Amino acid sequence: MPDSFIPPQRTLMGPGPSDVSDRVLAALARPTIGHLDPAFITMMDELKGLLQSAFRTRNALTLPVSAPGSAGMETCFVNLIEPGDTVIIARNGVFGGRMQENADRCGARTITVDDEWGRPVDPDKIEDALRAHPEARILAFVHAETSTGARSDARALCALATQYDCLSIVDAVTSLGGIDVDVDGWGADAVYSGTQKCLSCVPGLSPVTFGDRAVARIHARRRKAQSWFLDLDLVMGYWGGEKRAYHHTAPVNALYALHEALLILHEEGLENAWRRHALHHRALAAGLEALGMTFVVAPEWRLPQLNSVRIPAGLDDAAVRRRLLEEYSLEIGAGLGPFAGQVWRIGLMGHACRRENVRLCLQALGHLIGEADAAIDADAGISAADAAYTAA
Amino acid sequence: MPDSFIPPQRTLMGPGPSDVSDRVLAALARPTIGHLDPAFITMMDELKGLLQSAFRTRNALTLPVSAPGSAGMETCFVNLIEPGDTVIIARNGVFGGRMQENADRCGARTITVDDEWGRPVDPDKIEDALRAHPEARILAFVHAETSTGARSDARALCALATQYDCLSIVDAVTSLGGIDVDVDGWGADAVYSGTQKCLSCVPGLSPVTFGDRAVARIHARRRKAQSWFLDLDLVMGYWGGEKRAYHHTAPVNALYALHEALLILHEEGLENAWRRHALHHRALAAGLEALGMTFVVAPEWRLPQLNSVRIPAGLDDAAVRRRLLEEYSLEIGAGLGPFAGQVWRIGLMGHACRRENVRLCLQALGHLIGEADAAIDADAGISAADAAYTAA
Repeated sequence: MPDSFIPPQRTLMGPGPSDVSDRVLAALARPTIGHLDPAFITMMDELKGLLQSAFRTRNALTLPVSAPGSAGMETCFVNLIEPGDTVIIARNGVFGGRMQENADRCGARTITVDDEWGRPVDPDKIEDALRAHPEARILAFVHAETSTGARSDARALCALATQYDCLSIVDAVTSLGGIDVDVDGWGADAVYSGTQKCLSCVPGLSPVTFGDRAVARIHARRRKAQSWFLDLDLVMGYWGGEKRAYHHTAPVNALYALHEALLILHEEGLENAWRRHALHHRALAAGLEALGMTFVVAPEWRLPQLNSVRIPAGLDDAAVRRRLLEEYSLEIGAGLGPFAGQVWRIGLMGHACRRENVRLCLQALGHLIGEADAAIDADAGISAADAAYTAA
Repeated sequence: MPDSFIPPQRTLMGPGPSDVSDRVLAALARPTIGHLDPAFITMMDELKGLLQSAFRTRNALTLPVSAPGSAGMETCFVNLIEPGDTVIIARNGVFGGRMQENADRCGARTITVDDEWGRPVDPDKIEDALRAHPEARILAFVHAETSTGARSDARALCALATQYDCLSIVDAVTSLGGIDVDVDGWGADAVYSGTQKCLSCVPGLSPVTFGDRAVARIHARRRKAQSWFLDLDLVMGYWGGEKRAYHHTAPVNALYALHEALLILHEEGLENAWRRHALHHRALAAGLEALGMTFVVAPEWRLPQLNSVRIPAGLDDAAVRRRLLEEYSLEIGAGLGPFAGQVWRIGLMGHACRRENVRLCLQALGHLIGEADAAIDADAGISAADAAYTAA
């Protein structure tokens, strides 16, 4: 018979999940209550307010979908697309590709606009596509590409969507809480995120927010959304309004944890959180470069919370990541798709974005890189990071 | 600014979530690790084995869907139905109706066979429908109707499905762990359940299992499943095989909790768990009847874990449930649909199925009923339950 599972204590510097604080884990483990309990309803209302603050929106339709970020993505697509709709999708990494898969499965006519992995979405190419397809009803793009570490100009892209009478769908899974996500300021129509990145909550929920134009589109649907579970008309019966009609059983404890994680972000303040991510990113980047590593993404488009670096020649990707895990209990992320075996993705997300993690990562990588290449000083990374902190 | 949310300590005797033990809550709060961590993969394999035991199946395709039971239902429908398929659905409560909604949204031609709420699905009517629709490809029914407390004869219904060359889809959300769910013995093709009922885990996951005929149907699909998130071809890349390809970020901590909850069930033994549910049901039923209440479901079809009783005349449904919550911190379930305001649903699920809960419920109801009706002895319920325990 198996035993109780006691996980190792890791430092999580991959593409998510990120380190979860004791405070969030304690919230998670509080006693389960009913999903229609008045005390729970009060908590839901607070959670909604905290989510609106994090998203910088006044959208009433703002809630956590009861499933991971991929389901948040699907929520946007199944509610906003009807079969035959033309959808323009920007693809500069894995998650743009996933958007396309979603749109295809909704019966959309999908127009894909590709940019090189590691580059931001090019607004000029998007504008060309919008001009060429005046029938398009949706523009979808990824704000922070978790597969590459590139940020795109969400403000410019949302403005183009509005200008060409499209709704925008924005993937903010990795950005929310780490860099500015300004839903109302951008005029974004539908945005989804995840809990296990810069919010440092456990994985399994997907915050979403929908603006008035998106809600109007949902109300004007000619046929029901193809997903019952993700149908916002039904979900809103539980999350919105007075009646709180049962739709599905909410993941009660995970929502306690998200409430606590959002409260922590609120206490720190959004701008302080962004500054913290920028600070530790600068230190980590200085250290990685001192160890001879190069970034995939140009400085102006780099996500502070997701650092994609090329794996130094002569190092075995899987072997190094295994040793980091076994010798340092440190997780960093592998490359995906064309980046597999070529790139590491080093996360500095939420609670994991702190000085001791930067130092641990640089110490561990310094050790393994120095071992493989005598020309590299194993301590150079930490020294460079410390200098960056001193200069800050 | 809101404070941390400290939920009240409830006794959960509604239709789920049920009481979650400290052991499961402690597992839930263990440190988050990566969803591709080797330690996590080992845990997943154990969890799969424990789920197979609970479902009484050797099906390789047995795993927890990363979302609540409604998503487990949708997983079965979107993977097994192609547009135009004829699907026969037995409907004797809310969840049969939800199955129909799911099938409709998959583009099925849906044939609904109705039975009265509180009655089991009638196999004769199902056989008539199967005879009348030789083109039918799926028979879907609910084993344990959570909205009414009625059990149906899953063995007979699965046998009919096989006889008429249909796949069976079985809702075992409320049955798993509380009464016999014999997936291989029944020859069931696709079965889904939930974690927050007789498994007494937190809500948010949906165990599913698919047999060989169902897997063959998935492999023979002409078009992809309409849901990317629930596409088992993709999900299996993560849960099955050697490679563990990333699909979505698993709800790591919730899976710790499910592992622990299944371990607890395994330690007790399935048959002991069923006996425990039967024992406390008998005591509760004796007590409720001593308080003058009557059951909705005939004895031979009653679910021990979900007791639907008519609300005594002269009592205000909502007011009584509010007082139970406020004065006893006890949750019982309201009626749904035509049962709203007419029926209470009293759960005895998993960890909540124990003598102190039976006594608390009878004491609380006895007090409130006795207050409203001088002819009722407030202690009669507890006395009758105690006598039932003594006789057992």
